[in-house]
Amino acid sequence: MEERIKKIRKILQEHSLDGMLVTTTATITYLTHFDFLSPTEREAYIFITEKNQYIISSFLYKEELMHAAPYFDFLDISSAGGKPFWEHVKEITKKKYVDKIGFEADNLTVAEYDILHKQHLTLAPLSISRIRFAKDAEEIALIAKACATSDRAFEKIQPYIRPGITEKEVALQLDTFMRQEGAEPSFKTIVAFGKNAAVPHHTSTTTPLQQKDIVLLDFGAKVDNYCSDMSRTLFVGNPTKKEKHAYETLHTAQEKAYNFLQTQKAPIAASAVDTVAREYLMHHGFPNFPHSLGHSIGIEVHDGFRLSPISQTMLTEGMIFSIEPGIYLSGEFGMRIEDIVVVTKNGPQILTTSSKALLVL
Amino acid sequence: MEERIKKIRKILQEHSLDGMLVTTTATITYLTHFDFLSPTEREAYIFITEKNQYIISSFLYKEELMHAAPYFDFLDISSAGGKPFWEHVKEITKKKYVDKIGFEADNLTVAEYDILHKQHLTLAPLSISRIRFAKDAEEIALIAKACATSDRAFEKIQPYIRPGITEKEVALQLDTFMRQEGAEPSFKTIVAFGKNAAVPHHTSTTTPLQQKDIVLLDFGAKVDNYCSDMSRTLFVGNPTKKEKHAYETLHTAQEKAYNFLQTQKAPIAASAVDTVAREYLMHHGFPNFPHSLGHSIGIEVHDGFRLSPISQTMLTEGMIFSIEPGIYLSGEFGMRIEDIVVVTKNGPQILTTSSKALLVL
Repeated sequence: MEERIKKIRKILQEHSLDGMLVTTTATITYLTHFDFLSPTEREAYIFITEKNQYIISSFLYKEELMHAAPYFDFLDISSAGGKPFWEHVKEITKKKYVDKIGFEADNLTVAEYDILHKQHLTLAPLSISRIRFAKDAEEIALIAKACATSDRAFEKIQPYIRPGITEKEVALQLDTFMRQEGAEPSFKTIVAFGKNAAVPHHTSTTTPLQQKDIVLLDFGAKVDNYCSDMSRTLFVGNPTKKEKHAYETLHTAQEKAYNFLQTQKAPIAASAVDTVAREYLMHHGFPNFPHSLGHSIGIEVHDGFRLSPISQTMLTEGMIFSIEPGIYLSGEFGMRIEDIVVVTKNGPQILTTSSKALLVL
Repeated sequence: MEERIKKIRKILQEHSLDGMLVTTTATITYLTHFDFLSPTEREAYIFITEKNQYIISSFLYKEELMHAAPYFDFLDISSAGGKPFWEHVKEITKKKYVDKIGFEADNLTVAEYDILHKQHLTLAPLSISRIRFAKDAEEIALIAKACATSDRAFEKIQPYIRPGITEKEVALQLDTFMRQEGAEPSFKTIVAFGKNAAVPHHTSTTTPLQQKDIVLLDFGAKVDNYCSDMSRTLFVGNPTKKEKHAYETLHTAQEKAYNFLQTQKAPIAASAVDTVAREYLMHHGFPNFPHSLGHSIGIEVHDGFRLSPISQTMLTEGMIFSIEPGIYLSGEFGMRIEDIVVVTKNGPQILTTSSKALLVL
């Protein structure tokens, strides 16, 4: 874990800063191994100096935090006995002679900035999200475990997908399979039948499955704070010629993106991978899909970068991301195939292992 | 729904502003009836002028958003064909002659502020979270429905709470009961056995239940975007004298807070309600509990204000909040009793109806 803090100290040095205020919840989890209760409330801050590291949080979390990350000093912000975060920051900067403080401009709120600014602290925006881009061995193992969990759930759900069952019921059953293994769903499970599958971010409804429907499943597991994400498209009854052609073209587009990764030497432009799948689909007469080809995954389902036409990211060893082209024909049907891929020293490797062969239930 | 937008226009007038940029996800849900996929990513902005309202979001959500909130104009921020949010804001301000724009300082990030500032827009911090404090009839009905869902789950879970079952298994079963009714858990269900219950924010583990354990359940349902939250403490086998005394004192403390609400005329200081329960427990020799007595509830589980010693909130008609005192004896046991209360014209009313009588399983 010290290695992770060192990454921040290195960036601080490069920017001639001697303190860093970390506010992004996922980065705090990355540094502490601790998962907070609320995704939307500010439950903790981390402050890193040249030699010390502080976790500034509520007394309510102290015991669990100190167990997960004993290498941090704990400072209390609870209303019962603690102090506001900025008072702690001010005291640290005085005690440790911290001069210039980096902060996460895409996460710190204007109100938080203003109160720090009023303390006559020198603040500089500093993006550190890239420390989470390349995963270490421990993280890769956890994401692989999460992928195996969702693979098993996909295997188990298939006998349930029969005419009459609703989207919500399939989603509940998928989630239950993951939770029975001690995992959580990594995001709200998407189950879309028939025309609903043409809406890329469809919310599961009480629509019952009908013979001849296409079934799109997009879901993931969270295991020890790390996420998986996968999409599969199934057919209830034999697909039409048009559907079969679309599925096969989509499958090939996804494989072509992966094969491209195999033939390139890292660093590989993320945008180039997107182009391979996107142009293949458009070349075969399918519409441009309205989302990126993929996204990094880790503590968050969307963990920092994307594989899109405008992505600036270069893919290097340790990076883990989805490859998920889609075909959406409004009012007709939709389909998506998604795998999770890790870039290793010896090339890319797929962590989701469920079959992508056309599956008729 | 127009009423909800009017509330913002009224605040704008009071502050001589003619535009409002809304960024808090829950407030966007409040104004659109639409629930976004990610709690941590910025998926939408709302901009309100004197006469118009715009939802600025990804094309991926357009269809569902326009269905949920047809009274908004949709502006696309997706990378495929859209524009960054600040370009849309700039165009609206030009077209509609907007001069001064309010923004949510406790939500807008420094990076977002900076890019708006660079467009030569005049920005003023303006808190609008209070528009969600008092609930309207529709919201009260949805929260009552969510409370009924968690009440039923509590009824159904009791036969499962037997020695040998783990905390995680109870949590999964509770969540499944809620989801079978089409609800979602409103937060990560807390199940704590024995000593674990002494940690107020305990995360459910694989600890198996033992004879003589105390069981603390803290969970809630989310129904049509609105949350419930309840805590109950149960005994597996007869409690010791000390445990029984603690439970009865806690129960009385909770009732005293509610009775206090009954005897007062709104507006009632939230801090005074906290004091009633807190002092009763301390007067009877129990430690000061390290959290507030309660919190408002609505679209979010923690929906804006707290009932704490330092709370400035005055409780008025339509406000809905929890009353949840606790006793935590580290290394021994913990207990908490929590109900959801709404302030009506005719006094307070409890929306959670599960019994609080000492229950031995």
